[in-house]
Amino acid sequence: MVYIDKDANTSLYEQIYLQIKSGIATGSIAKGTRLPGIRTLSKTLGVARNTVDKAYTQLAVEGYISPHKGSGFLVEGGADAPFKKTECPVPADSGGHDCGFQEKSEKIEYDFQYGNFPKSCFPSAAWKKHSAAALSAAVPSCLTHYSNKQGNLSLRQELQTYLHHSRGVRCSEEQIVIGCGLHYSLDILCMLFGERKRVAMEDPGYHGARELFKNHGFSLHALAADQDGLALTSLKSADICAAYITPSHQFPYGSVLSIYKRKQLLEWAEESNSYIIEDDYDSEYRYDANPVPSLQSLDRNDRVIYIGTFSKSLSPALRVNYMVLPKCLLADYHRMFSSYSSPVSWLTQEVLSRYMASGEYARHVRKMCSAYRRRHDVFVQECAEQFGDKVVLHGRGAGLHFLLEFPRGTNTKRLMSKAEEAGVRVYSVEPFWNYAEDGPDHLIFMGYSLLDEVKICEGIRILRRVWNDEIN
Amino acid sequence: MVYIDKDANTSLYEQIYLQIKSGIATGSIAKGTRLPGIRTLSKTLGVARNTVDKAYTQLAVEGYISPHKGSGFLVEGGADAPFKKTECPVPADSGGHDCGFQEKSEKIEYDFQYGNFPKSCFPSAAWKKHSAAALSAAVPSCLTHYSNKQGNLSLRQELQTYLHHSRGVRCSEEQIVIGCGLHYSLDILCMLFGERKRVAMEDPGYHGARELFKNHGFSLHALAADQDGLALTSLKSADICAAYITPSHQFPYGSVLSIYKRKQLLEWAEESNSYIIEDDYDSEYRYDANPVPSLQSLDRNDRVIYIGTFSKSLSPALRVNYMVLPKCLLADYHRMFSSYSSPVSWLTQEVLSRYMASGEYARHVRKMCSAYRRRHDVFVQECAEQFGDKVVLHGRGAGLHFLLEFPRGTNTKRLMSKAEEAGVRVYSVEPFWNYAEDGPDHLIFMGYSLLDEVKICEGIRILRRVWNDEIN
Repeated sequence: MVYIDKDANTSLYEQIYLQIKSGIATGSIAKGTRLPGIRTLSKTLGVARNTVDKAYTQLAVEGYISPHKGSGFLVEGGADAPFKKTECPVPADSGGHDCGFQEKSEKIEYDFQYGNFPKSCFPSAAWKKHSAAALSAAVPSCLTHYSNKQGNLSLRQELQTYLHHSRGVRCSEEQIVIGCGLHYSLDILCMLFGERKRVAMEDPGYHGARELFKNHGFSLHALAADQDGLALTSLKSADICAAYITPSHQFPYGSVLSIYKRKQLLEWAEESNSYIIEDDYDSEYRYDANPVPSLQSLDRNDRVIYIGTFSKSLSPALRVNYMVLPKCLLADYHRMFSSYSSPVSWLTQEVLSRYMASGEYARHVRKMCSAYRRRHDVFVQECAEQFGDKVVLHGRGAGLHFLLEFPRGTNTKRLMSKAEEAGVRVYSVEPFWNYAEDGPDHLIFMGYSLLDEVKICEGIRILRRVWNDEIN
Repeated sequence: MVYIDKDANTSLYEQIYLQIKSGIATGSIAKGTRLPGIRTLSKTLGVARNTVDKAYTQLAVEGYISPHKGSGFLVEGGADAPFKKTECPVPADSGGHDCGFQEKSEKIEYDFQYGNFPKSCFPSAAWKKHSAAALSAAVPSCLTHYSNKQGNLSLRQELQTYLHHSRGVRCSEEQIVIGCGLHYSLDILCMLFGERKRVAMEDPGYHGARELFKNHGFSLHALAADQDGLALTSLKSADICAAYITPSHQFPYGSVLSIYKRKQLLEWAEESNSYIIEDDYDSEYRYDANPVPSLQSLDRNDRVIYIGTFSKSLSPALRVNYMVLPKCLLADYHRMFSSYSSPVSWLTQEVLSRYMASGEYARHVRKMCSAYRRRHDVFVQECAEQFGDKVVLHGRGAGLHFLLEFPRGTNTKRLMSKAEEAGVRVYSVEPFWNYAEDGPDHLIFMGYSLLDEVKICEGIRILRRVWNDEIN
């Protein structure tokens, strides 16, 4: 379909882009056609995957093609090719979710997406009250001054106490840097690490972090993760500046890093003069009797950078997170970011700090945790009733999502499309793997932050009905 | 004082750090001692400047030494060495200003700092009203969903109209990316530019941008700027990905780039396949009859990235700015940042968009502009009355700051310290030069965003009195 001339003056990307575009315009590529996958086309043409990726992305932006559920691209205009901006779930502390844009899909009544919440979760009345108070006559001049790059002192003091009580984190407020999301914290770290542009991360792991590290020119060392934990042996020989991990609730498997592996990780960091970036992304949601202590609380050698967020406890649209820097990084931090200002509005921080100081935040977190504990329990119970031992649930006891493991050989792409037809959206695990193609095809990702208990039960029952032929 | 052993096991940085620290602890380096400058010490010891910088920064963080007005460091505890966290002005869209921490210097009654505003400037009542409305029962689910990475659609639509009317910027809302400050926008651009890690910027120019580019591993190509404009000839042969400039009101000189040079710049960008980053940091404050059109409005080849901010018109603590991407960068932007979310709280954006839609923002900007026009005029007039032709004012007709040029040979360090003793703070231009040492010593930087007309007059009169011996 596409012909490449490597000696031509036009770049490879443009050749691909222009030929497909003209094919669509002239009708020689019919509407609804499924284009070859990026990997396939790059192999066929003998060009880099990025080249094909770039051409497809440009065509998608211009509306010629649209991403197809699962994988690949369809030529726009075909009957089954509605243009969807967001096809993958929105994990951890970021998201491609296009709140201003996203066309509401009327037929999806049960969306097991991850990370978004019903608006009733947000404490609007308290927020309104504290906003009004913060803007009263006694407002300090901070309202119209550039802010401390680490964030409001009062909020950092609240956080210091909160993190110590809830997660055993030991730090002073001088080590805390308030940010506008995980991406902000990792941006700062990537710049702090400077020349050593190689980082380890879990595979599978949070794809947003992977994208960010790549954007900073970092190469990735993959740490194989599964339901039983994390393979750490390869770390010793890897020359990396840091390991980005989710030890308390591995994303997406949901496993907890054992105390033995925690110690191993801390020892490695000390011996190799590297850091551990501990992303405690859903720390508020522990349904087990004994909460897992943070890795930071075990660290005696200034090796752990602890990161947490208000995205799961208050709202992902609030854009407030926090990072605890080891003391040994503070001098470099102050030197390199001397002209930086906090990325978070002073008013937002002031309201949040008042909300915490009043005790309302702690009560809100307890309320949210018990609400989601019920949803978690209902999910587990309904799955057992509907699927018995045909489906294994990974990630129990914490968080806001599950991995569903089906018998090997199950065609999960077909499961997803059958669910979609019945108004239930479940998600592919592909984005979480370093190479999408490595993602096992017998896993499905389901979040339950957006649905209530009734909807969770109904959704799972529908899945049982439409999946009956596939998994029996 | 410090002895370096290049063969020792201890790093050079640690050797310097430990020797000075122990010298201070044992008293062999007396309190109040002025340490040799970074450049001087690095030359004396034959080590890199960064090494000395790092040692000094660590000592400063630990409270052993403190930055000295102008340059250098003093051993803490001496009579004239109060520990000041912020010694340089806070220009453009960021700042080291430590609102939560900064000890108020009681004796400074007239602070000609730049970029911070009196809190009375902020429209608190309107903000409270719109916040309450935005949090009312009809709040959309966006409140608890991850946000579009480009920002709220309604705010981008308001901005699109506003920028077209006020600055002639031509774009669709799909090209606008709302950010949490200039640093955010430049972060995105540094990652977008990828491999071509060399950028041109004005010298002198905004030091915050310089710090940021360095943090991303970019090297800098200096474009000499003075009161008459910008030297562009060196651009042709420079292999750079972008030129970061302030064409409407050069920072800090305040000159306006001529239409002839604008065209030259646009032609260069097209020929060399490079971009122009137009930082229109104080676009609201034009006191001349004819406002200068934005460079973006003249661009026909998708070469200009336009950046503006709400920091000067509403508050630097609001942390909202915006960037207009050329269409040709959109595909890369969407591909590389697919997992990113807006860095600005949905609620802040919603309130701002309501404030703009109601027409209040436009009125607020007009009010601020005429208030600061009066301050500008008073500044010009009082300077002329007090100093006659002994001081030349650069940057008239726009903005919120001036450069004061004294006769060559004037010792501005002495001027600054005499002013400080009399309760008036004025600022060094050193931070704006690529190499601080290149900063001419007959220039002084003064902002007038924080002082009212009466204070401006009083401050300048005091300066006349205490500077009388120096500049006559």
